[in-house]
Amino acid sequence: MQRGFIFDLDGTIYIDNQLIPGALDTVQKLIQRGDKIIYFTNKSIESIATYVQKLRALGIEVQDNQVVNSNYLVARYLEKNIAQQANVMVIGENPLIEEIEKIGIGCTWNPVETSYVIIGWDREFTYEKLNLAFQAWKKGATIIATNPDRTCPVASGEIPDCGAMIGALEGATGEKVELILGKPSVQAAKFITQELMRLPPEQCFMIGDRIETDIKMGIESGMHTVLVLTGITTKEIVNQSQYQPEFIVDSIRDLIDATTNLNSKGKDLRKK
Amino acid sequence: MQRGFIFDLDGTIYIDNQLIPGALDTVQKLIQRGDKIIYFTNKSIESIATYVQKLRALGIEVQDNQVVNSNYLVARYLEKNIAQQANVMVIGENPLIEEIEKIGIGCTWNPVETSYVIIGWDREFTYEKLNLAFQAWKKGATIIATNPDRTCPVASGEIPDCGAMIGALEGATGEKVELILGKPSVQAAKFITQELMRLPPEQCFMIGDRIETDIKMGIESGMHTVLVLTGITTKEIVNQSQYQPEFIVDSIRDLIDATTNLNSKGKDLRKK
Repeated sequence: MQRGFIFDLDGTIYIDNQLIPGALDTVQKLIQRGDKIIYFTNKSIESIATYVQKLRALGIEVQDNQVVNSNYLVARYLEKNIAQQANVMVIGENPLIEEIEKIGIGCTWNPVETSYVIIGWDREFTYEKLNLAFQAWKKGATIIATNPDRTCPVASGEIPDCGAMIGALEGATGEKVELILGKPSVQAAKFITQELMRLPPEQCFMIGDRIETDIKMGIESGMHTVLVLTGITTKEIVNQSQYQPEFIVDSIRDLIDATTNLNSKGKDLRKK
Repeated sequence: MQRGFIFDLDGTIYIDNQLIPGALDTVQKLIQRGDKIIYFTNKSIESIATYVQKLRALGIEVQDNQVVNSNYLVARYLEKNIAQQANVMVIGENPLIEEIEKIGIGCTWNPVETSYVIIGWDREFTYEKLNLAFQAWKKGATIIATNPDRTCPVASGEIPDCGAMIGALEGATGEKVELILGKPSVQAAKFITQELMRLPPEQCFMIGDRIETDIKMGIESGMHTVLVLTGITTKEIVNQSQYQPEFIVDSIRDLIDATTNLNSKGKDLRKK
């Protein structure tokens, strides 16, 4: 039975520029036995090409269509849901704008001609952008965000991520943003399992270090879930969470051992 | 029995630069019979001096100590609660910064030396300011906001107010801002009735055009409440609200008639 493995990147496959020990070996074993692999990150300030490059530099064999980020999900959503002559207003950085322009949809700062306001992480966010997005919303534009992450870890600690831009818009509109396409959106999980992997969710594993994004999405979309302890989550945090992963492993190194003897219902065959 | 009248400004006393018909007459009658008057606005981008000037230009007799805005409340709070050698980080415009500097507290952009982050409406809000405020919060600073208003009406419609800046911070921290000092904060109401008017709340009237700020604060702090229909609230909006004003008048013109024959328990003596 072919399986799908969806890997989070930072904290799961690597930390900053260091591969987590055992990651390469694990991924190679999955490839050798014919499983499907997708790498899925919420980060909206890097392009897919950058991730492909980084993974290859770390020795991991990967194709462009094996990496999904929240920008890519937004572009796919727009491709399906709006006419090409429509315009979107983008609060976000160049990789997000480029991903949208690639499909021929125009970007605008004119609230009157905006169908969707797309909010990503934007380190050049200003009151002016906020006001233009708010005016577009007042005129009926739909707000979509790339990812709900509050913060992003950086060398010096953490800095505000897309959650802050979402908060600013929600603070002005008094309404929740209608759609957030990154993890833990079930919409994203469905897109990856159905359209990219063509596998039922019960044959797929979501592997990541964050309970509120990776594990939550895996559980809510019917996948197997594996929490790695190499990122931001400790066992204590897991114990206090309402989302309990099916497997907890010290690192990606232990993934094959922990999950190989499962049948499609998640039952560990070794226990028999 | 002396009474206190707390008036909202825009939509209640004036609209833009036009006095609402009857406002001058009403205010003069209250002054003549010896009632106390305070004008209270949430707006954090103007100074008290500006409001005093504006009211006088409209013919209303007013002293500096009769105008309260949310900046003033923040300064009074800081004066009471922090040492003068402490530093605050201010996301806000010059009138807010000046009000704080007036009491000898230093303003800083250094997260390490920040005791309080003060958030007001800031039309020059940027990601950089957001990040510095977030870093100060991470290092233990308390966040206080001037006012919760989502938007502010302007000639062209409405634009994001302090609620958007609050949302951005809350989106990054994942926590609610600890203290918001403008209307409808009960803390603000107490300060005005106890310290400025020296009257029990049941001898005070809160008069304004906004249910979620003016009327909510009046009800929650035990004052009489009067909603005027000259601002943003219609009778239909009142009907759908969980906060029901004691009096609804078409305009400030009808205030004296509606409220004169009340005893201190709010009972309309004319009904006997």
